[in-house]
Amino acid sequence: MVSHSEPPKEDLAAVALEHKIDEANAIINGTTDTSKVHELDASKLVVTLADPNARQVPDEAAANAGLETICTDHMVTASWNHQSGWGVPELKPYGPISLMPTASVLHYATECFEGLKVFRGFDGKLRLFRPNLNAKRLLMSTLRISLPGFDPVEVEKLVAKLVAVDGAKWLPKTRPGSFLYIRPAVIGTQPQLGVQAPKEALLFITASFMPRMDSPAGGMRLHTNPEDMVRAWVGGFGYAKVGANYGPSLLATNEAKARGFHQILWLYGQEAYCTEAGASNFFIVWRTKEGKLQLITAPLDDKLILDGVTRRSVLELAKTRLAEEVEVVERRYTIDEVIEADKEGRIVEAFAAGTAFFIAPVSQIHHRGTDVHIPLGENDSGAYTAKIKSWMKDIMYGNEQHEWGLVINEEDEAAAGQKRKREQDDEAKRE
Amino acid sequence: MVSHSEPPKEDLAAVALEHKIDEANAIINGTTDTSKVHELDASKLVVTLADPNARQVPDEAAANAGLETICTDHMVTASWNHQSGWGVPELKPYGPISLMPTASVLHYATECFEGLKVFRGFDGKLRLFRPNLNAKRLLMSTLRISLPGFDPVEVEKLVAKLVAVDGAKWLPKTRPGSFLYIRPAVIGTQPQLGVQAPKEALLFITASFMPRMDSPAGGMRLHTNPEDMVRAWVGGFGYAKVGANYGPSLLATNEAKARGFHQILWLYGQEAYCTEAGASNFFIVWRTKEGKLQLITAPLDDKLILDGVTRRSVLELAKTRLAEEVEVVERRYTIDEVIEADKEGRIVEAFAAGTAFFIAPVSQIHHRGTDVHIPLGENDSGAYTAKIKSWMKDIMYGNEQHEWGLVINEEDEAAAGQKRKREQDDEAKRE
Repeated sequence: MVSHSEPPKEDLAAVALEHKIDEANAIINGTTDTSKVHELDASKLVVTLADPNARQVPDEAAANAGLETICTDHMVTASWNHQSGWGVPELKPYGPISLMPTASVLHYATECFEGLKVFRGFDGKLRLFRPNLNAKRLLMSTLRISLPGFDPVEVEKLVAKLVAVDGAKWLPKTRPGSFLYIRPAVIGTQPQLGVQAPKEALLFITASFMPRMDSPAGGMRLHTNPEDMVRAWVGGFGYAKVGANYGPSLLATNEAKARGFHQILWLYGQEAYCTEAGASNFFIVWRTKEGKLQLITAPLDDKLILDGVTRRSVLELAKTRLAEEVEVVERRYTIDEVIEADKEGRIVEAFAAGTAFFIAPVSQIHHRGTDVHIPLGENDSGAYTAKIKSWMKDIMYGNEQHEWGLVINEEDEAAAGQKRKREQDDEAKRE
Repeated sequence: MVSHSEPPKEDLAAVALEHKIDEANAIINGTTDTSKVHELDASKLVVTLADPNARQVPDEAAANAGLETICTDHMVTASWNHQSGWGVPELKPYGPISLMPTASVLHYATECFEGLKVFRGFDGKLRLFRPNLNAKRLLMSTLRISLPGFDPVEVEKLVAKLVAVDGAKWLPKTRPGSFLYIRPAVIGTQPQLGVQAPKEALLFITASFMPRMDSPAGGMRLHTNPEDMVRAWVGGFGYAKVGANYGPSLLATNEAKARGFHQILWLYGQEAYCTEAGASNFFIVWRTKEGKLQLITAPLDDKLILDGVTRRSVLELAKTRLAEEVEVVERRYTIDEVIEADKEGRIVEAFAAGTAFFIAPVSQIHHRGTDVHIPLGENDSGAYTAKIKSWMKDIMYGNEQHEWGLVINEEDEAAAGQKRKREQDDEAKRE
């Protein structure tokens, strides 16, 4: 269930979100009147398989070398309209989407997405990493951008179906230690100009190659954002994975890249609080003035930053497995605190954490003429960074059996797919 | 030429924008190396005409009754990629756009647009209203969202071609006093996931029906935004017509609509400065405490609001034609000033101004339990509002010959189109 506390009636946005959350909860609890509006239902999935021999699977380096993301054979789509609700989801050959030039998403950024990975374990099994968290966050982002709600469990099931169907070929057992990137997205498709909540929408899910970005040579170098460009603000939507957080950030990021940096360290407000690194969460390991070792990251409560699945996992692992060594702190902290800690030799490690970048060690922060150099340890990574990363990898690739690693039963899913296909064929014959 | 003042080197965003502006100026001045990268060139337009009998033109009421925008027979498209630059623009039958599911615009809101109108004058002529301003603003928005630059004059020419070709049928001389809405847009089309400036893009221009929204019965009712939701912020992108300004605003707008209001009056900051009304600029006519009559609107210099073409036209007309009666003021003013003026009986009129809503009288502002009721005059409009609106209408519909009304030479354009078509046909035969 999606939770909310009662906002004051004057709080228009909060009340609006509350209404959308109530609708979503009604879906999740099965208390909506489904006689009129269809809910998203993964069990109704219609499967149309691609010719399995039509496309070859490239090796990882070749797949990531071009300017186009290589997706697997299939994708999942489900369309929605405000009168009939969600249509039957389809698993079908990967291919283009057709939109009218007046489609909402192309003008008003009525769009949101998720990113998660599926891993081929060293034990031969296929695992999703905490997909329930991504599905819930997709619902939250969808509601924030005025797109239709759904039961997140259904999205999780659709993701599982897609990777079950394409996993054997595209993430074969001969490539343990590899992953594919899953991208669920919801877009507003109503072909009507005018600023309004779309009355038609499309959910789609792709699986694709994505480069490994967790070990930039010499560590990741961050440049703080300029004063005249902020990523998110209190009262905005920095916590939601909506397109509107990304496009506007590109201008400053490109300039930082032209100057030899990898990403922007986004600061907030007059105080210059550290928030996110690029599109990842940001962590520092430092010693306090009193000599206490701390893992620090920005808090969620001001809704400026994304509630990252990797962020959350890092915090939970550090709290349980490093409790005796490191204090875990979520609080606002400023770039001046970081610079001061650097001057006093108190910075131990830093890293960016997110699904795309996984856990990427940070070696430098440039802030208005001042450079903070963070020493990298062996193998270009601090020791705590390496330890946390290794724990997560073990869960992702099945070296450690852990509830966060959701094993996909490929055989059952494939068999069920074949069965459903036969039934559909039979039905087609009868008609 | 696009202008900029020299920003300090540490100003990453400003420097980035400066670089993009320099590129754009090189295009406009013809000093780019066009041997490698092609610039947008309207003179190369390739025309493929639709069957003129395939679609009937609906009457205005029917056209605006549905949930889909009715576009004219044709649209203009031009694609760009980072290696070859702009491709040959095409004028072709209106129809869907095909995008890969990984296209940048669907995930990262790499999108911006413009809105302008073409009018069928009472003198039988077709006029665009100050299209040069829209084309220049499209360039500014495009650069802000990291999409490719172009000479705005070429966009203006492409808009003119489209309305010249479709004007006779879709805005016939039998319907003087009517308009069509023109929507140029630029989107990032590169099919690659990952937060980056797109290396492929598409410009497209449509012409369509749009409802008349300038005379809501009883006047437009505004509800101020909740404290936890702001439209734009200093250091953001509120001044650019990018998708990211619109989608996130829908949640609060829908809640306001559910409560019987038309739009949000967006306030900014602790001081609660009045900025925009919905997606339009906002004007008040009031008397100062000293009894002086003022037309007041928010300023552009903090980059929170859109530099509206209607806004600019209202200010210019008021300054030249109402100079003896009304002082025109662009400054920050707060909702508390508005409430105080209301209590003291000093508010004379208020209106929203924008291309879509034209000039729409405002009758009410609700702010956290307090209501400001603004008396409407005869015909649901204040006298100054009506006067300014009438001047603009006269220019738009050719009752007054004015440099703001750009007359489209339909015959010449149509003849040139036919000639180009014959040449292309001849060329095709020779090949």
